[in-house]
Amino acid sequence: MLAETPDPPYYAVIFSSRRSDIATGYDETAERMMHLASQQPGFLGVESAREEVGITVSYWADLESIKRWKAQAEHREAQRMGREAWYASYRVRIARVEREYGLGD
Amino acid sequence: MLAETPDPPYYAVIFSSRRSDIATGYDETAERMMHLASQQPGFLGVESAREEVGITVSYWADLESIKRWKAQAEHREAQRMGREAWYASYRVRIARVEREYGLGD
Repeated sequence: MLAETPDPPYYAVIFSSRRSDIATGYDETAERMMHLASQQPGFLGVESAREEVGITVSYWADLESIKRWKAQAEHREAQRMGREAWYASYRVRIARVEREYGLGD
Repeated sequence: MLAETPDPPYYAVIFSSRRSDIATGYDETAERMMHLASQQPGFLGVESAREEVGITVSYWADLESIKRWKAQAEHREAQRMGREAWYASYRVRIARVEREYGLGD
């Protein structure tokens, strides 16, 4: 459940959001996007949790992989629905992971 | 509730964790560390959510601020308790935010 990422450097997309009250299609699309992301070239892993704020951090080999995923047709349609319906607000932050350490598996 | 961060570049500490079944002192310490972190030099904001996995992303002006916060005495004691009791596993990833965009406030 914690992403198993390689030694840095690699990239993280930190997606933080607050939902709107429109739920139609959201859960299915979120699940589908997780599945689809995991099949993209350069995908390294993902971690996700939601309370008042939702945070999904996906990990990628390089910026080119992130750019391709952002432009993927089905994902673009999901992004449009996100902007127009599912999210009251969100932030996308693209960051270069420089160091990683931890405990346990 | 979404962090209001300045224009990049700045830094993110992505802390992903799975809890153990030891809860003693955890909530108070987590709240205290949030408060304490927000008073540190270089602190820019924080976002946090927990389901099966907990994700806390704190934002910092530079690596020096992150280093000072890691070495802060009360925080060090909390880190020790985290390793020895509260977490089954965790990852800390230090990343340089290069780009940010979003929707809404």
